[in-house]
Amino acid sequence: MQTFRLEHDAFGAVQIPQDKYWGAQTQRAIGVFGAGREQFPPALVHAFGQQKLACARANRRLGTLDAALAEVIEQAAQALADGHFDSHFPLTLWQTGSGTQTNMNANEVIANRANQLLGQPLGGKTPVHPNDHVNRSQSSNDTFPTVMHLSTRLALSQALLPALVQLQAALQDKAQQWQTVLKIGRTHVMDAVPMTLGQAFASFAAQIAHGIERVHGCLPRLSSLPQGGTAVGTGLNAPPGFAEAFCEALSQITDTPFTANPCAFEGMGTHDVFVEVSGVLNVLAVSLSKLANDIRLLGSGPRCGLGELIVPDDGLTSSIMPGKRNPTLAEVLAQACMQVMGNHTTVTVAGASSLFELNVAKPVIIHNVLQSISVLSESIVRFTEHLLLGLEVDRAVLARNVEGSLLLATALNPVLGYDQVARITRKAADEGLTPKQAAVALGLLTEQAYDAHVRPDQMVGR
Amino acid sequence: MQTFRLEHDAFGAVQIPQDKYWGAQTQRAIGVFGAGREQFPPALVHAFGQQKLACARANRRLGTLDAALAEVIEQAAQALADGHFDSHFPLTLWQTGSGTQTNMNANEVIANRANQLLGQPLGGKTPVHPNDHVNRSQSSNDTFPTVMHLSTRLALSQALLPALVQLQAALQDKAQQWQTVLKIGRTHVMDAVPMTLGQAFASFAAQIAHGIERVHGCLPRLSSLPQGGTAVGTGLNAPPGFAEAFCEALSQITDTPFTANPCAFEGMGTHDVFVEVSGVLNVLAVSLSKLANDIRLLGSGPRCGLGELIVPDDGLTSSIMPGKRNPTLAEVLAQACMQVMGNHTTVTVAGASSLFELNVAKPVIIHNVLQSISVLSESIVRFTEHLLLGLEVDRAVLARNVEGSLLLATALNPVLGYDQVARITRKAADEGLTPKQAAVALGLLTEQAYDAHVRPDQMVGR
Amino acid sequence: MQTFRLEHDAFGAVQIPQDKYWGAQTQRAIGVFGAGREQFPPALVHAFGQQKLACARANRRLGTLDAALAEVIEQAAQALADGHFDSHFPLTLWQTGSGTQTNMNANEVIANRANQLLGQPLGGKTPVHPNDHVNRSQSSNDTFPTVMHLSTRLALSQALLPALVQLQAALQDKAQQWQTVLKIGRTHVMDAVPMTLGQAFASFAAQIAHGIERVHGCLPRLSSLPQGGTAVGTGLNAPPGFAEAFCEALSQITDTPFTANPCAFEGMGTHDVFVEVSGVLNVLAVSLSKLANDIRLLGSGPRCGLGELIVPDDGLTSSIMPGKRNPTLAEVLAQACMQVMGNHTTVTVAGASSLFELNVAKPVIIHNVLQSISVLSESIVRFTEHLLLGLEVDRAVLARNVEGSLLLATALNPVLGYDQVARITRKAADEGLTPKQAAVALGLLTEQAYDAHVRPDQMVGR
Amino acid sequence: MQTFRLEHDAFGAVQIPQDKYWGAQTQRAIGVFGAGREQFPPALVHAFGQQKLACARANRRLGTLDAALAEVIEQAAQALADGHFDSHFPLTLWQTGSGTQTNMNANEVIANRANQLLGQPLGGKTPVHPNDHVNRSQSSNDTFPTVMHLSTRLALSQALLPALVQLQAALQDKAQQWQTVLKIGRTHVMDAVPMTLGQAFASFAAQIAHGIERVHGCLPRLSSLPQGGTAVGTGLNAPPGFAEAFCEALSQITDTPFTANPCAFEGMGTHDVFVEVSGVLNVLAVSLSKLANDIRLLGSGPRCGLGELIVPDDGLTSSIMPGKRNPTLAEVLAQACMQVMGNHTTVTVAGASSLFELNVAKPVIIHNVLQSISVLSESIVRFTEHLLLGLEVDRAVLARNVEGSLLLATALNPVLGYDQVARITRKAADEGLTPKQAAVALGLLTEQAYDAHVRPDQMVGR
Repeated sequence: MQTFRLEHDAFGAVQIPQDKYWGAQTQRAIGVFGAGREQFPPALVHAFGQQKLACARANRRLGTLDAALAEVIEQAAQALADGHFDSHFPLTLWQTGSGTQTNMNANEVIANRANQLLGQPLGGKTPVHPNDHVNRSQSSNDTFPTVMHLSTRLALSQALLPALVQLQAALQDKAQQWQTVLKIGRTHVMDAVPMTLGQAFASFAAQIAHGIERVHGCLPRLSSLPQGGTAVGTGLNAPPGFAEAFCEALSQITDTPFTANPCAFEGMGTHDVFVEVSGVLNVLAVSLSKLANDIRLLGSGPRCGLGELIVPDDGLTSSIMPGKRNPTLAEVLAQACMQVMGNHTTVTVAGASSLFELNVAKPVIIHNVLQSISVLSESIVRFTEHLLLGLEVDRAVLARNVEGSLLLATALNPVLGYDQVARITRKAADEGLTPKQAAVALGLLTEQAYDAHVRPDQMVGR
Repeated sequence: MQTFRLEHDAFGAVQIPQDKYWGAQTQRAIGVFGAGREQFPPALVHAFGQQKLACARANRRLGTLDAALAEVIEQAAQALADGHFDSHFPLTLWQTGSGTQTNMNANEVIANRANQLLGQPLGGKTPVHPNDHVNRSQSSNDTFPTVMHLSTRLALSQALLPALVQLQAALQDKAQQWQTVLKIGRTHVMDAVPMTLGQAFASFAAQIAHGIERVHGCLPRLSSLPQGGTAVGTGLNAPPGFAEAFCEALSQITDTPFTANPCAFEGMGTHDVFVEVSGVLNVLAVSLSKLANDIRLLGSGPRCGLGELIVPDDGLTSSIMPGKRNPTLAEVLAQACMQVMGNHTTVTVAGASSLFELNVAKPVIIHNVLQSISVLSESIVRFTEHLLLGLEVDRAVLARNVEGSLLLATALNPVLGYDQVARITRKAADEGLTPKQAAVALGLLTEQAYDAHVRPDQMVGR
Repeated sequence: MQTFRLEHDAFGAVQIPQDKYWGAQTQRAIGVFGAGREQFPPALVHAFGQQKLACARANRRLGTLDAALAEVIEQAAQALADGHFDSHFPLTLWQTGSGTQTNMNANEVIANRANQLLGQPLGGKTPVHPNDHVNRSQSSNDTFPTVMHLSTRLALSQALLPALVQLQAALQDKAQQWQTVLKIGRTHVMDAVPMTLGQAFASFAAQIAHGIERVHGCLPRLSSLPQGGTAVGTGLNAPPGFAEAFCEALSQITDTPFTANPCAFEGMGTHDVFVEVSGVLNVLAVSLSKLANDIRLLGSGPRCGLGELIVPDDGLTSSIMPGKRNPTLAEVLAQACMQVMGNHTTVTVAGASSLFELNVAKPVIIHNVLQSISVLSESIVRFTEHLLLGLEVDRAVLARNVEGSLLLATALNPVLGYDQVARITRKAADEGLTPKQAAVALGLLTEQAYDAHVRPDQMVGR
Repeated sequence: MQTFRLEHDAFGAVQIPQDKYWGAQTQRAIGVFGAGREQFPPALVHAFGQQKLACARANRRLGTLDAALAEVIEQAAQALADGHFDSHFPLTLWQTGSGTQTNMNANEVIANRANQLLGQPLGGKTPVHPNDHVNRSQSSNDTFPTVMHLSTRLALSQALLPALVQLQAALQDKAQQWQTVLKIGRTHVMDAVPMTLGQAFASFAAQIAHGIERVHGCLPRLSSLPQGGTAVGTGLNAPPGFAEAFCEALSQITDTPFTANPCAFEGMGTHDVFVEVSGVLNVLAVSLSKLANDIRLLGSGPRCGLGELIVPDDGLTSSIMPGKRNPTLAEVLAQACMQVMGNHTTVTVAGASSLFELNVAKPVIIHNVLQSISVLSESIVRFTEHLLLGLEVDRAVLARNVEGSLLLATALNPVLGYDQVARITRKAADEGLTPKQAAVALGLLTEQAYDAHVRPDQMVGR
């Protein structure tokens, strides 16, 4: 049977399950918003631990927090960062637009844990008070966005960038491996002139390389933190130098460089940088959509499709068509991209809702940004490892397509001029001839001259 | 050399080109907003003429406008509706969010024209005053949205619906024509089981039929007009019965049924119905994207693609690959769909910006809705007439694909069970056999038994 | 210590935790896609139970499934529907675009449970085979979209519609309660002419009423199911009449009318109806954004804002500004709307990705549609119960605003004409006068005449 | 009476108006796509002139074009660049997805003009042939995207960046001017703690500064051109060194640095960089939405709103409420932002449609990107010049709001602790007291002590 303790806040008393470390404001928030199926990811809770740890260190250093209290707060905050209190964050993400309740939750859990370490019962708020000590020199209004920046920054460097680097390398390898394998180029999805399969993969690789550049391009603004702005950006109740001391501590804790936003108002009242980051993810989604679609279509078949690529068998099949093989992970990647594009709309609309000194769409923004990063990262890794690395080619199909193409005749433009070549390709198309047959039939070239000028392997550039 | 006349408003005097019918507020608005490359389409100006005509009739009938003045106002408004004053609407669409300046422009042009008909000089505002008479019983706040409803309603019935009906009929015809032509079905872009080409086109036709239903579904709300609400929705300065008298007049003028919105506040302060209409266009864009993409891919080739369909030659070609033929109008249609999807985001964001008693994103909303309708309508008509009607099939390719398909063996499920059929298709795939060869090789069926059970033309349903 | 059993499929053997009811294909799918933090909601699993139950009944009735097997399959499917097997659906939603793996999962769980009921061990596939019996007359390609339709349809009728009806009633009540309470109207966020607070709430109520209409408008298409189309839409391997027998059974099971889509191709190859439903939710998001924003701004203050409304105290406050009260649930509602708008982009892009006989963005579509419905429904209910019902007004502020407004003078238009009234309001604005003072100072009216014409309570319509 | 000449292409003969410089393919394209209300902006035609000029120079230098022909081609191309042939580009933008027809149009106009300069009649294609000479070493597939890059690059540097720099400077000036003017801060749109008006404008200025950084951040990728890739990216029919020679010439012509994309495939088959640029514009739209909305709401009134700012009178007013003043240019700016957000969706979807060697959504992409840039640039300039520069403050309102705020008591946190301050603010709120009165009444502080600790001008930071 569950037992409860009573905690108090300005609004009165509230019952809290005895085994939970959260306090009165969190409990009230459950009543208002519910617990809900949708919660912030654990990584956000861990980032809160790191942020509270850095705050305690900065406060201690600046003399705004008693060293003994700082000590236990840091210990408790570290435990949060290490994932020991994930189950003490019960709230749905669909809460106040400032994320205040999750900051309160962090303050309460840390205060309770710190007091417990000092031999005090949960809920007493003494000697460590959630607001006066754990939240010292802070407001939810600078804390929550700082945690948004932090968790996003870490997700980029720990999940997305490694996934992109691995994918880019795999694409480069394929480009190298298939450097001289001829294939027909396609424009308007119609047969065009020849190229190599390696060139197609080099183009994918270039897209991803640019994507990596774009991620790096937004890091300076993402690493600029509003902590220290407190309630509205003025820094009220925080000591001079707090922002800088905090960033130094956090950089050390996370081994990642962070700087203080010289205009904390900008980092609290607006979240343009998350719209920017989401925009960068959106470009990646666009790049990856092409990759997924090209590979699906080039691998379509096995007998009635383009059939130039062979997607590795993943062992999964149809529930009615036994043995059917499908490019499942390309579909996962494509769907991840669709999600990212939609999340980008959400983040854009949420970003544009900024009013006065506080953007109050913080939970929905960070939820969408973190989901975009995680869904992209995971699907890239699975796509790379289970599909791309095992991709093979059907050389017979590739060769047949190059040979059959009408527009090989394009190589004759410099010799015959555009208008004569047009006669050749039209004749070939209308009468089912090869372009060589048509050229000879029109009396424009001998077979030998044709062969001298139209050499697919010479048409693919350097 | 251009000459000018002076007109006055509460703000002072302003110079107006002598040959222009607009007045002081329009002239000032040019100074504030500019003329600009982007203007409302003429259809919106014409709808203003119809709206002012209906107002004059309603005012006359209710006794709030002297019959003689009403007579000339109606005459001038009719001229506007007939397109005789298009060049007297100089303003960019990027203007005040209420569209006030274009309503003022209409009032001024009609007043000037009416006074001229009465032998008075332009700019005198007498006997017909733009606000006191032409704008009688109205505000821009109910007038502009009424014109938004009206112009959208007419664009749907005059352009989009006929285009959809024509397209749907053409698709039905193809479905009928190709009712028994076998083709391979494709799921996950991979070979699946057989079907008929007619079934594919019947599916396109069903999509468009639902699209037509959806357009009809929003007409009742779109035909409900806020005219009569005047400044904020209360109807201040309009006589009782004005809304109804107006709708009766407008229905007669346009031969289209319109009703008075019982809550004019809703029709002025919000534009949910345009988000709805835009959403319906967005579904059409989704449907038409599939149509454009399927036809492009099924028609890809001519020699290295799927090649089941043959897109008619439009005479256009590549600037470097002479004689290359591309599915140009499918690309136009696809691009139109992309525009509609983006416009839908704009309309959604603009709709969500409603505050208090007036949505002030009216110009951007109506611009996007009307562009979506026109770009869809035009591209549908061109696609239907220049591409769809001339579409042909390559029966040899269709037949070869059906015969080669591995998953014909799916028809054996009821006979052999899923697990045995899986053995057949895997063996056939791995060893390059037909499913029949594999089935026989595995000793599961005789050739005769296979042929009795696997009959593509029996696998396509009723 | 966890123990495992071996199961086999065409690809070979696979180890499965002994206490789990899923089978080989689900286990392989975990290897390919992972389990993941993001899974389908339990409601989707329950809908699968209902779908499999209805299939078994239809198969039994049509004689395509042995009655004894049907009996245990139905029993197992019912248990799925009742939520007893939620923990046996381990897969992430980021899977094959057909949702095949979740259909396989359902087939495997039901088969294992059915065999267990018959005294057989898990994993033997006998006498009940997941594909040959549980999936009888079905494909993932018609089954998964049927479950999409079903789960969406039930979420609308069980969660969203009741929430909307409750909200609409509450808004109507407020409209009634405040029918004669005067307030200033605002256009362009600037002071305009008077109205009543009841009128503002009647307008909100009208928006929601239209929203309810729109939801009902899409139900016929949503209730039209592709079940029976099997692999590509032809109905291969399903007996004649299966679609109709299934719909009859499902309608009975769910007490909700469902019909067979006469063009199953359309319901499998495209998901236009989900783009439509998402579009309807998008309109609701737009409507609710206005509601949330108006209430936030009208309730802004308590001392430096508009202050006309008083939002009830929810007991939550700031972590730095003690006692600060915020309109938390309006922020939740606004954020829910942002999510819905973004999800709509995802669903649109996913809908437009349809190719050939199968749209392979089914998981991402249903995830977004169901999330939009649940997040809207929940936030509406909490907003209504915790905020709207307790909303109060500050009559002093309302009255002061009406009295101070310059544009009360608009009521003089019919008496003095637009140009004279413009002189009054300009003078009043420039010199800080009331419009009455300005009118009298300009010698246009006596005080008595002014008072006779300008009566706020007469300016608000019928 | 219009007279015609006959021109020929591979498809046959076609009639062209005698006074027009376009040729057969353009004329056919009018038949297929129509002329249409929506065309590319003149700037794109001018960019085509610059591109053709640079190609002719590169061809001349590399010896692939006879010097005499190059000379007249350059002369004609320069005339195109100078805007002398705008009226000879009749096509709608809704054309083939490669923009081929507009490239053909440019080739034909230049060839005809060049031949005319050499004394030859229009339409003879000799000695200058549109494909063999004007289009020498080019394809539409590398030319059109190069023109997309070029026109976007120039629009950014010539229109958007100057507009942003001017806006940023004006915001900085206001930040400076109002550096010490106290105002109440607002979070959750509710009264919070004090700050200065200068801080609010410094935050706007910081947003725009970041926006400028973001624009600069994408220039390197935007300045990387695919010219030289010809048909699919291989450079078929272009001489070695063409890409570099072209970029050198173009950089000189436009006085802007351009480089050759080392992977031309990437620049033709995908347009990720336009999704990136559009994303940067989208962030600007988000930033500017806040600016427009804050200024509208802070300037709301004049008597029933927040009334802290005074928007300058632009002379425009309501058609029914005479003398009403509205923040018209803030509404224009807000609407421009909405358009940009929607265009971003279009560009994203269009970017994601890339398939194989050619993205065929080029026209819709460049149309939306250029419209976003122009509509943003123009509305920023007008907003800055007509609204921002004339913005004034109501110091009485500002002061009254600061003094009345309950949360001044936040400054007491370090003195009394969070829980005691909560008692003060609750009591003050509930009983209509100032926080000082409440603090004294609760016996927590003397008046003198309160005044010593709570000093608004000391609460606003450094």
